[in-house]
This record gives sequence, C-alpha cells and structure tokens, in this order.
Amino acid sequence: MSQVKTVTAAMIIIGDEILSGRTKDANLNHLALWLNRMGVQLLEVRVIPDVAQVIQNTVNELRGGFDYVFTTGGIGPTHDDITAENVAAAFDVPFVQSEEAVRLLHQHYGTDNISEARLRMTMIPEGATLIKNPVSTAPGFQMGNVFVLAGIPVVMQSMLLDLEHRIFGGDKMVSKAIHVFEGESTFATILREVEAAYPDVALGSYPFYRHKRFGASFVLRSQVEKSLDQALEMLKGKIAETGKECFDGEAEL
Amino acid sequence: MSQVKTVTAAMIIIGDEILSGRTKDANLNHLALWLNRMGVQLLEVRVIPDVAQVIQNTVNELRGGFDYVFTTGGIGPTHDDITAENVAAAFDVPFVQSEEAVRLLHQHYGTDNISEARLRMTMIPEGATLIKNPVSTAPGFQMGNVFVLAGIPVVMQSMLLDLEHRIFGGDKMVSKAIHVFEGESTFATILREVEAAYPDVALGSYPFYRHKRFGASFVLRSQVEKSLDQALEMLKGKIAETGKECFDGEAEL
Repeated sequence: MSQVKTVTAAMIIIGDEILSGRTKDANLNHLALWLNRMGVQLLEVRVIPDVAQVIQNTVNELRGGFDYVFTTGGIGPTHDDITAENVAAAFDVPFVQSEEAVRLLHQHYGTDNISEARLRMTMIPEGATLIKNPVSTAPGFQMGNVFVLAGIPVVMQSMLLDLEHRIFGGDKMVSKAIHVFEGESTFATILREVEAAYPDVALGSYPFYRHKRFGASFVLRSQVEKSLDQALEMLKGKIAETGKECFDGEAEL
Repeated sequence: MSQVKTVTAAMIIIGDEILSGRTKDANLNHLALWLNRMGVQLLEVRVIPDVAQVIQNTVNELRGGFDYVFTTGGIGPTHDDITAENVAAAFDVPFVQSEEAVRLLHQHYGTDNISEARLRMTMIPEGATLIKNPVSTAPGFQMGNVFVLAGIPVVMQSMLLDLEHRIFGGDKMVSKAIHVFEGESTFATILREVEAAYPDVALGSYPFYRHKRFGASFVLRSQVEKSLDQALEMLKGKIAETGKECFDGEAEL
C-alpha cells in the first residue's frame, strides 16, 4: 500500500450564472472523468461568483492544497471576464500581454479585426504558458499548477487535449460496481464488514429509484486492483449468503 | 439602495460519487432556482468527499459566512453516510436519537422492520429539528442555520417543501435577458458603459454556440427592479445604435 502514488486536483467553477441557476454546469462531470483517466483524483470543487477577491482567495487556498487546480469560466472578452487578472493577482505577478496569443488572434481574425475587447483575451499572468483552444482560438493558460480554462463546455473540453502531456497522474483509481434491487439498509452490516476487511478499497452505497423500484449500487474503488477484486468477491459472497440477488454493473467510476 | 435586504446561502454537496464522475449532481440547479424564489442568493457551492474532517471544517467555515447553509447527501443507512454525525461534531453537540424520527420510521415500516441500519437514520445532532421527507420517510434536519438534506434529487426536492416557512428571504433578485447573434466582444464597450451607469445592476455576458451560430446572452440582475428596467433600456438603445439586432429572451435568472 505504501507504493501507491496518489495525485490530487481541485476545480473552481467561476460564474454567477451557475449560482443563480440560469446555467447548469456541464464541466464538472467531464473534468472528473478525464482526470480519472489521467490518474488524478478530483477531491474538491468550488463554485464561486465573479468577484475579484473571492477568485484570488480561492485560487490561493486550493493551489497549496492540491497537486493541480483547474478553473473554468470568466476568460472571455467582456467586462465580467475577470478570471485571468485575478489569477495574476493571486500569484502576485504582473498581468501582461502574450505576444503568442496576439499572433494567434491575428491569424484567426485577420489583423484588422482585433478589437480592444478581443485583445483582453491575450492578457495572461507573467510567466504563464498558453493552453491551445482549437475551437475558438482565444487560449487558456497554465500558471504554476493552476490551469485556467474556458467555461463553454465544447471549448473547455478541447483545451484538455493540450493538457494530456502536462498532467502527471499517479496510480489510477479503478472502480467496479454491483447493483441490488433492495433497500441498501438490508446490506449495511455486510458493507461495513467488507470495508473493514479492505482498508485500501473505498466502498460506496448509492441508493437509486428507477422504473418505480428502489435499489442500490455498491461501488468499490481502489488504486490496488488486486484488493478491489478480492473485496468484490467478498461482497458478492456475503450478498449470496442473504439469499438476495445482485447484478454486475458497468465499471462506472 | 441602502434599503435593499440581501440574504445569502451556501451549499455543500457531499459525495465521492460526484467527484469521481460516477454521478452527475442534479441538486445544485434545483436549489439555486428555489432559493431565488425564496429571495435568497446562493453565493458559494462546494463539492466535498465523504471524509469526516472535511465535512466538519466545511460546515463550520460556511455556516459563519452565510445566512443559510444547505447540505445534500450522506444521510442514508449505510457506513458511508456520515453527514449527520459530522454536523453534530461541527456544532460540538452530542449525536442523539430522535424519538420523533423513530416514531415516523415505525409508522412507515412497521415496528418489526426497523433494522439497526435504518435506526442510523434517526440519529441527529442534539437540538436539531426534523425536516419532513414525504417520499421515503427518513427525515433530514435543521441545526442552527444548517439544513441537512438527502442526496437523491426527488427526496431532496420534497424536503424543500418543509422549509418554505423556515427560510426568510430578502429582496428578490430580478433578472432580464436579451440575446444577440454576434460575438460578445462586439458589445464589450457598451456592456461596460451600462454596468458603470447602474451600480446596483449586475450585467453578465454569456457566449453560446447553438445551431452552429455563435451568440451571446446579456443577463441583467438586480434587487431594484426600476434600475433593472432602466439599464435594460440603455443597453437596448446602445445595441440599436450599432445597427445590430437583439432579441428579448425569457426572464431567465
């Protein structure tokens, strides 16, 4: 167990529109699944408003506590796009124009069509490196361990392509699930026994209500696949002893 | 403006399954819209894992900073449902059995069908009051300004019905939106002018990509409806001056 390497991340979703309910966030789930594939565990998400001091404080609190921090939202051309300048402030570095970003915008829009508003999108913290945006050109950036991404899901997702070689994951969290069509409380003692027997396996019980039936999914997660398989066998055996049926599920994470 | 009464809230989504990407949260958006109707502004959301100390720290940090705090998830009958005991720990009060909750479960399941696991769901912090669960009986609870709700959306939503008379909102945030089928950067200067002219109106610009067209929604929000209407007129006037068209939207929040 001491050989297991764990790499962690936090996410900051920046945007009044999520908090007001106007927009449903679609980036959390995508980032969570992408990070799993990269061998990184997402351990905290915060949704915060477009308020300068809140952005600075949150970035500074989380970048010290996690290996990687990802922000989404607030990097467009308008007055309410204040993420970039506040990441610069959080790192206490100047907010400067990226010549490379200017070149990219010129290439995309032509040299005559770069309004002052669009030039806002070429400003980054000094020392940051750009993150490519294959969808709409205006780049994100990486500053230290903080990755600043767009809020529009299609753009955010395309930016992750440029990060696959910048993120260094640990041992992947592997996950297996089984399901029962019974209230989870029936199996509470069994679940507790399995979790106690395998300290390196996390066992979650998730009740559901589907097709007018209550049931539960038992999800086992571990960075040690051998333990995961043994714990799953133990769980299946103990469920069989109760005379109840269980069903293999997809290996949902 | 000094007459405006603002009431604030934070939300804590407790669950490894959201952070791992296994489950998509469906409660944030519902709570945000419900709070709007109650005259309460949701100003921060945190998604955290099922870890005792993290739950305690997060509850304590947020209950001091906001008028109301809502948690979802982790109040079922199994070993990984640790929200209730950690809210008790956060308030530094004993974790006790609620006779009222026991009575409700007896009524629902019959006196012979109350397993030890189900009895876990009758434990609450000393001094807490129950929140009714019309869907599956096991109650949530209110402790101080913290409201502890179920994670299953249909149950969580039903619990809010019991809170309508316990939440005291301020002046409602009113919202109006218009849309353009142009890149938002075209209007960046106009938006800045409108926001500067009406300090009590928040103006957000949200780019979208729909039906293969880029566009933007401009959303004005204020607790002072008169200012909102004036700001909207100013914005429409300035957009008309550019020769571009704009479209009235739904009054999305």
